[in-house]
Amino acid sequence: MTRFALTVEYDGRPFVGWQRQSEGASVQGSIERALFEVTGEQAAVHAAGRTDAGVHATGMRAHVDVAKAIDPFRLMEALNARLRPDPVAILDCEVVPDDWHARFSCMRRAYVYRITCRRAPLTHELGLAWRVPQPLDAEAMAEGAARLVGRHDFTTFRSAHCQADSPLRTLDRLAVERDGDRMRIHAAARSFLHHQVRSMVGCLAMVGQGKRTPDDLADILAARDRSALWLNAPPDGLYFVGAEYPG
Amino acid sequence: MTRFALTVEYDGRPFVGWQRQSEGASVQGSIERALFEVTGEQAAVHAAGRTDAGVHATGMRAHVDVAKAIDPFRLMEALNARLRPDPVAILDCEVVPDDWHARFSCMRRAYVYRITCRRAPLTHELGLAWRVPQPLDAEAMAEGAARLVGRHDFTTFRSAHCQADSPLRTLDRLAVERDGDRMRIHAAARSFLHHQVRSMVGCLAMVGQGKRTPDDLADILAARDRSALWLNAPPDGLYFVGAEYPG
Repeated sequence: MTRFALTVEYDGRPFVGWQRQSEGASVQGSIERALFEVTGEQAAVHAAGRTDAGVHATGMRAHVDVAKAIDPFRLMEALNARLRPDPVAILDCEVVPDDWHARFSCMRRAYVYRITCRRAPLTHELGLAWRVPQPLDAEAMAEGAARLVGRHDFTTFRSAHCQADSPLRTLDRLAVERDGDRMRIHAAARSFLHHQVRSMVGCLAMVGQGKRTPDDLADILAARDRSALWLNAPPDGLYFVGAEYPG
Repeated sequence: MTRFALTVEYDGRPFVGWQRQSEGASVQGSIERALFEVTGEQAAVHAAGRTDAGVHATGMRAHVDVAKAIDPFRLMEALNARLRPDPVAILDCEVVPDDWHARFSCMRRAYVYRITCRRAPLTHELGLAWRVPQPLDAEAMAEGAARLVGRHDFTTFRSAHCQADSPLRTLDRLAVERDGDRMRIHAAARSFLHHQVRSMVGCLAMVGQGKRTPDDLADILAARDRSALWLNAPPDGLYFVGAEYPG
């Protein structure tokens, strides 16, 4: 058995999410099917993060064990050929030690959330960004984001379906970048709670609209109460962009 | 009658092109249908450029005459509401003089062509950029582009179906911009021949791959012979981004 680490890009729009489910197409299922066509092996592909329906990735990391003798470049090429027409692409493939685990070895995960501020409906970006119909105050959002960085109980920003043992997380980075009517919010942490990024972004947008203040955001964080959340942003704008590992 | 100038964004993927045709959905037909639903009027919408199937726009300009009394902002909002689910959005709408013509008054048209250099298939960008499987030498391409700028007989870069009276055009700008594995080629001129941008981009890519030199490009321009063309780039990466008018 050889363990391969994959870097995966996908368009989340047609999928029920990363994880295989009883119904609907999943990214995991798509890669496992392609792998079976290439190797004849039914192997489970494990990812650094299990993204929800409609959430995208440009740098998801995953691993899989393969018995067939095949070099990483040929495996990547063969998988990409079999993945079509699914919007999933293997960007990189390398051999890793048997104890390297895409999920459990991961030390840091990074997401980007894309917002486009305009009244008109989206065309090329439909499902690929969150459209907010009014301009957002990036400075107020950055000030709000600063209140969330650090080690906190993120219960307010956690889905009711979150399966994590603890609501405590250390948010390393939450940065607001603006370019004209487009905005990117960069989030990085060892791990995130379910819906944490979308919930933080939804509330930052309320601050950006001037409906709430950075102080209000600090208050709902301190409340540690899901019902205090103002808004959960849609999956459309969320991208898993990278994962870091030791070494 | 009031003449309205529209700024239009569209995703060219589902369309046979800008222009109404006997079969298939067109951008023009989509806007004219929405306009009929809003005003009850069957009016022709005229554009600065008639893009081909699969070609996109972020800043197409168009005009239409409307008898119904309606202010520009409400017309824009109503059109956008009726255009769904077609991937066409009206970004701006203003009243213009009766002699303002989106096509005939236009003094300068600008296109951007997007290339993504990588082996893996595209996902989010599928149909929105041209994938070239090897790295491109941006400096060689810029040198090649410089040979095409100016007033020339562009017969080599002109579709056999081009209906223009003359193959002479003045290319004001052809600039190559690179950002990692992504490239944008900016083209501007008073007007372009049919397929001119795609043909120039296809040949620049051959120079970028090192298969041809900037001098070779100057040679095929001088040949004034369509059969001298190396490659016509696909519509996927082409965007009509703006049009300029007097005043």
